[in-house]
Amino acid sequence: MTAEIIDGKACAADIEVGLKQRITALAASGRSPHLAVVIVGEDPASRVYVGAKQRACERLAIESTRIDMASTASFDEVVSTVRRLNADDSIDGILVQSPLPAGMDEVAITDLISPAKDVDGFHAANLGRLVQGDTSGLLPCTPAGVMRLLDWSGVEVSGARAVIVGRSRIVGMPLSLLLAQKGVDATVTIAHSRSRELAALCRQADILVAAVGSAGLVAADWVRPGAVVIDVGVNRVDDPGTTRGYRLVGDVEATAFEVASAMTPVPGGVGPMTIAMLMSNTVRTAEMRSAD
Amino acid sequence: MTAEIIDGKACAADIEVGLKQRITALAASGRSPHLAVVIVGEDPASRVYVGAKQRACERLAIESTRIDMASTASFDEVVSTVRRLNADDSIDGILVQSPLPAGMDEVAITDLISPAKDVDGFHAANLGRLVQGDTSGLLPCTPAGVMRLLDWSGVEVSGARAVIVGRSRIVGMPLSLLLAQKGVDATVTIAHSRSRELAALCRQADILVAAVGSAGLVAADWVRPGAVVIDVGVNRVDDPGTTRGYRLVGDVEATAFEVASAMTPVPGGVGPMTIAMLMSNTVRTAEMRSAD
Repeated sequence: MTAEIIDGKACAADIEVGLKQRITALAASGRSPHLAVVIVGEDPASRVYVGAKQRACERLAIESTRIDMASTASFDEVVSTVRRLNADDSIDGILVQSPLPAGMDEVAITDLISPAKDVDGFHAANLGRLVQGDTSGLLPCTPAGVMRLLDWSGVEVSGARAVIVGRSRIVGMPLSLLLAQKGVDATVTIAHSRSRELAALCRQADILVAAVGSAGLVAADWVRPGAVVIDVGVNRVDDPGTTRGYRLVGDVEATAFEVASAMTPVPGGVGPMTIAMLMSNTVRTAEMRSAD
Repeated sequence: MTAEIIDGKACAADIEVGLKQRITALAASGRSPHLAVVIVGEDPASRVYVGAKQRACERLAIESTRIDMASTASFDEVVSTVRRLNADDSIDGILVQSPLPAGMDEVAITDLISPAKDVDGFHAANLGRLVQGDTSGLLPCTPAGVMRLLDWSGVEVSGARAVIVGRSRIVGMPLSLLLAQKGVDATVTIAHSRSRELAALCRQADILVAAVGSAGLVAADWVRPGAVVIDVGVNRVDDPGTTRGYRLVGDVEATAFEVASAMTPVPGGVGPMTIAMLMSNTVRTAEMRSAD
């Protein structure tokens, strides 16, 4: 068996079509969504991600403002920036790019963003709604992107055994809540580096999600033949044969494509969905503020 | 094998000893913790629960104020009551007893309680911290009680397979997050009414938690011999042989005591722990406000 490729780029493009219509409707009422991106320091991967987000804004005619802060910026300076953006009525969405410089408390900064402008969906008040069983608010982008991708691909989620490897606040934890919601109805297992018999556990999965950030950690023989595999990992591995000197690989061994029934590629799987959901959240914040 | 009984009453009594010391320390600085309980309508079970909470306050010299509202009270009247209690500096903790009258949005009311006075731990901002990996705040009482009970009983949680049957915002969802936290390290499965092969899934559990509210739903042969069983359910079943006409039973068949290595009884298992954790949260809010 060779897996059907779950094409995140194509799904993201479909989402952008819908967003463009909503952006046009907003423009007709005199509003253009406006995203503010705060980036602190010179992390090269962050600059790549922020660049991709800004290009998506350009494609969709979403206004974006980038605030570059020096790696030496203090916690208080970042706090002041967030407070200023909260108070700025022209800004709909605020995103503080991770990682912040070592020692700066990312969660504390996240929780200072106005929940109504929290386009990353990482604010405690937004994450807490998932525990309450309410998914109508701003959802974290990567987990929301995975849900959309499963839906778009026609994967049967209700009653399925989903195993998520990784328990981050960004992906694993919120995705487990989304998959277990009433009406979604997967039976969800959260596994992690301390889980015993991880391979056998993964082989029970109808839907296997890898979100650990470790190249090829999930071996092909951890995948049950016919399972659906969602690979959230984006890892750089050295590759002198490329002009950049590295290539991107997922958390799942590429040979798993011979075992799964459907699988996301890396790159071109979950990555584009994360950006599409960020755009979706930004349009959403503008619509909500427009309705106020 | 006959299971060791995990004695929630004894564990709760141990917790009360520690709380009394903290309450004495607060009193020395001129503060007494003060819990406000709002009860709307005449639900008989609610009155029993609120009575038990008030008796716990009396045992511990925690001041308690009960606000009785008619079953005909409007949403706005309940909102006004909560706002008044938020603003009242003499009140440390606020609890709105569930269930509210039919049609009244409980989650909306919960989210109006000041997060710093949210002794039930159900506010989105408090639940969201669990997704963020932070368990230092006000935790929901029943899940926190289960965690304390496992610790008190010496149950090995790290690396264990935990299966939680039930995905409520009150128990199943937050407990899954607590068990999966870094440093706790259980491998957690959230199962529910839509889960397939529920019996086989439960038999994989080292720690089986039943939190569905359905008498005896979890059959004895769903329990792996030697597993630890935590029965969160409290269900009334008719029993003409008793003076009250009913008795309380859990979600797990009583014959599971012959299979498990350790198991909580109903009543006297998780129930007393929920109240102990409510008292603990109330003392906590008073300490936090005292430190301000």
